[in-house]
Amino acid sequence: MSIRYPNGKPYASEKEIHNPYIKNHTYSNRGMSLEEELNETNEYYSAADIACIHKKPTPLQIVKVDYPQRSAAVVREAYFKQPSTTDYNGVYKGRYIDFEAKETKNKTSFPLQNLHLHQIEHMKQILQHGGIAFVIIKFTFHNEIYFLDAKHMIEYWERQTNGGRKSVTKQEIETKGYLIKCGYRPRVDYLHVLDTLYFS
Amino acid sequence: MSIRYPNGKPYASEKEIHNPYIKNHTYSNRGMSLEEELNETNEYYSAADIACIHKKPTPLQIVKVDYPQRSAAVVREAYFKQPSTTDYNGVYKGRYIDFEAKETKNKTSFPLQNLHLHQIEHMKQILQHGGIAFVIIKFTFHNEIYFLDAKHMIEYWERQTNGGRKSVTKQEIETKGYLIKCGYRPRVDYLHVLDTLYFS
Repeated sequence: MSIRYPNGKPYASEKEIHNPYIKNHTYSNRGMSLEEELNETNEYYSAADIACIHKKPTPLQIVKVDYPQRSAAVVREAYFKQPSTTDYNGVYKGRYIDFEAKETKNKTSFPLQNLHLHQIEHMKQILQHGGIAFVIIKFTFHNEIYFLDAKHMIEYWERQTNGGRKSVTKQEIETKGYLIKCGYRPRVDYLHVLDTLYFS
Repeated sequence: MSIRYPNGKPYASEKEIHNPYIKNHTYSNRGMSLEEELNETNEYYSAADIACIHKKPTPLQIVKVDYPQRSAAVVREAYFKQPSTTDYNGVYKGRYIDFEAKETKNKTSFPLQNLHLHQIEHMKQILQHGGIAFVIIKFTFHNEIYFLDAKHMIEYWERQTNGGRKSVTKQEIETKGYLIKCGYRPRVDYLHVLDTLYFS
């Protein structure tokens, strides 16, 4: 892996780069982004032999690549693509795990524009084939992270499609979902919710 | 998704872009690359409600992004990263599926330099957590595509680590693996091998 720090500056994290397909960017330095928290959680799960779950790379359409002599190939033109699947997947206790993670600054609801139709269709497929699919939602204002089974998110999406509200209320998420216990290691223990729902 | 054809030229497929982490590039126009064949196969599996399996995006380290007014964000500097996992994963009949796909022009063996230590470690983890892991190997000269269970590939990797040969002979792959039936739809029917091994 070629690590580069041009001008001595550290890399921007993926969340800090303005990818048009990531809504509600967090530019705050006050804490970790949800993505960073989940990456750390997944590293812990992997190191502790609990599960093997990874974030997929950001999908880019590469147009132009330079091959400078004696240096690594440099991508000089590429565009962000709309993701066709969710961001995270892997295996836990033999089961296929698949989820999307989103944070919102909204205090009382989760706007459905944070998700894409492709991702909803993907979650439907996963459920159909016997996988475990869900969404992790962080309300940054409240500093609360929720687990919501994909079947509920699909219902809310379809409610919107049928002319209903364009968001899921925090109260609905509290009722149908589960508050995830956050700590030091693992930081965001979402597998604990799965244990209760699927493995107990 | 923003599709662009600069200079009227069609996009290069990922295989045609010289990613240093993809060995044995196929620049030939005589047929589809293994990646294209597998993408088509996976699209078929998805459309026919058989399985949900996708190729992960190519991992890139993004360094610089331009935001031209009234245009899509353009990545202006990015570097290929060594993949830490395998390229394909998904769910089939409730099971977690994970594999790497490689083609070689070699006639009599598969060079182990086509894989990375990280990928071998990843496959070990998948097996440990109850997933199904394997490698799909195409011998382009013979136009034959083989399925080899990860446990065998791990054995060959460890043989190399212990001072043994730096490749797997085609004969070994023929003996321990399975020739995948190729046709029109699906093009490379690797799930048929899984049916025989795991679901019969």
